[in-house]
Amino acid sequence: MSTDEPAAAWLAGLAREAARPAGQAFAAANIALCKYWGKRDEALNLPVTSSLSVSLGELGTRTVVTVGEHADAIRLNGEDVPPEAGFARRASRFLDLVRPAAGIGYRVDTRNALPTGAGLASSASGFAALALALDHLYGWELDARRLSILARLGSGSASRSIEAGFVEWHAGTRPDGLDSFAEALPEQWPELRIGLLTVSAQQKAVSSREAMQRTRLTSALYPAWPAKAQADLELLRRAIRARDFELLGRTAESNALAMHATSLAAQPPVLYWLPQTIVHMHDVWGLREQGTPVHFTIDAGANLKLLFLARDAGVVAARFPGVRVVAPFA
Amino acid sequence: MSTDEPAAAWLAGLAREAARPAGQAFAAANIALCKYWGKRDEALNLPVTSSLSVSLGELGTRTVVTVGEHADAIRLNGEDVPPEAGFARRASRFLDLVRPAAGIGYRVDTRNALPTGAGLASSASGFAALALALDHLYGWELDARRLSILARLGSGSASRSIEAGFVEWHAGTRPDGLDSFAEALPEQWPELRIGLLTVSAQQKAVSSREAMQRTRLTSALYPAWPAKAQADLELLRRAIRARDFELLGRTAESNALAMHATSLAAQPPVLYWLPQTIVHMHDVWGLREQGTPVHFTIDAGANLKLLFLARDAGVVAARFPGVRVVAPFA
Repeated sequence: MSTDEPAAAWLAGLAREAARPAGQAFAAANIALCKYWGKRDEALNLPVTSSLSVSLGELGTRTVVTVGEHADAIRLNGEDVPPEAGFARRASRFLDLVRPAAGIGYRVDTRNALPTGAGLASSASGFAALALALDHLYGWELDARRLSILARLGSGSASRSIEAGFVEWHAGTRPDGLDSFAEALPEQWPELRIGLLTVSAQQKAVSSREAMQRTRLTSALYPAWPAKAQADLELLRRAIRARDFELLGRTAESNALAMHATSLAAQPPVLYWLPQTIVHMHDVWGLREQGTPVHFTIDAGANLKLLFLARDAGVVAARFPGVRVVAPFA
Repeated sequence: MSTDEPAAAWLAGLAREAARPAGQAFAAANIALCKYWGKRDEALNLPVTSSLSVSLGELGTRTVVTVGEHADAIRLNGEDVPPEAGFARRASRFLDLVRPAAGIGYRVDTRNALPTGAGLASSASGFAALALALDHLYGWELDARRLSILARLGSGSASRSIEAGFVEWHAGTRPDGLDSFAEALPEQWPELRIGLLTVSAQQKAVSSREAMQRTRLTSALYPAWPAKAQADLELLRRAIRARDFELLGRTAESNALAMHATSLAAQPPVLYWLPQTIVHMHDVWGLREQGTPVHFTIDAGANLKLLFLARDAGVVAARFPGVRVVAPFA
């Protein structure tokens, strides 16, 4: 993994003697209000732009890691994952970063409270939980910045799942990525609600990794994305500071639509939406026209995430009977 | 209409004595393969980019115009249109360009072979037919370039409905628009088929006029559009010359998706798609994966237009039972 040298060099200084029999950790999933969409370095998961997310409270990933036999053994939601599966290969590549020597394996038992691969950011909480569990196993006691960088090497958005609440991932500029990490904003927003709508819990036909790469390389609209993301990030920071929900919702929705728009213009096009996605969008706009301030965001998948305030929970639940409501700060 | 002076000055030289009791004309609708999306001059309908279309054979507008009473009287598909309706106001503003004096009205009887306002380009064939009918009424015998400019003053895309087959509208650069006209390409393509799918024949919630203006002014992705349109135009010209159907279809589909993508990022967003639109898109991609070269384009509306070759008509009709097939060159 030659391109990982800088990160590996830093990691090489860490203890590789287990401090306890098992490391365990929980990391919350996060939903980006300003999306991570496009990498400037594929091996190190360095993003083109900064991004900003909110964590999903108790929804996330719980992981236990122990030093095992000669090969890694990965269990996902109670089932063994074949070593040749994409998920296991990604996990093993990540474990290579901290493996004391070839021929030493880890046993990883990981459980998601969210459907895997349906745009609900399970890889974010997954790699964040694994980074935290390794820190616990070896007793490193890394600070949040180092943990964020480590998690990022597994999955870019995992950098935003080390801390809770509003989290901003600074894109950074260094080729080694040591300034590309996430940190929590100080603001809390107890009234904020996230509503998860599940249109499809199936695995995506095109991974977000593949989609963002294809979009960056082939979409004629991608060159306009970085400025859009930067402008939205500033609007979101302002909305959070001022608790201006309309500004928060409008900006997050516009950012998500623009992200999907760039990938529509990729070649071949990437369209994550299903018919029900469109029904939900029109429903959100309908509610808004009737005076309820509800907005949506949508990641690389078919499922909308609603943004609204606690006082409107009844109206939202009435329009979207299957909605699962999360209170990130409550 | 002060901003129309240049056009009005040219038109002022034309005879205003009717050469016959009634002028009549037919103009075919056209489907853009490279879209007209954004105006550099709203009053003169001058586009930001050049565009390219194919005409729809017998589907279009048939119009009869006579000099009438003191006020314009517009009939659409056999029904009187109230003078305050948007359609009648647009027609009357257009008729002002050639009206010999205030207080003289026209009787216009216009019939569309396509649903009005559902993204099936009825305003294109409508204003082209009206321009042609006025030419016939007054016996001007204008050349295709002048007719295209006149039609453009009614509706931009009408400039492409004066001639049949593949038609390119040159954006032009002059402020007076006298170099912004459409002309037919010499190529024919007898095997080419257009399949019209009707998801909705309802009037659009947002007119294409409003949508393209909002997109140009507020979409963070619009700045990337002109280069995309220019590149696609060149690919389409090459595809038509070489009868390379895959290149034609892929380029037209990508251009349409990019157009819709820019408007998704408008503020507020414009989404013309209905759930069935997505079903049809996935169906097209499914057919293509199975080896049938079928592509789609989509205008400011919910309805897909399929592009395919005569030999695949059976497969297309089987997958899309309601499709209406047009042979532009047959």
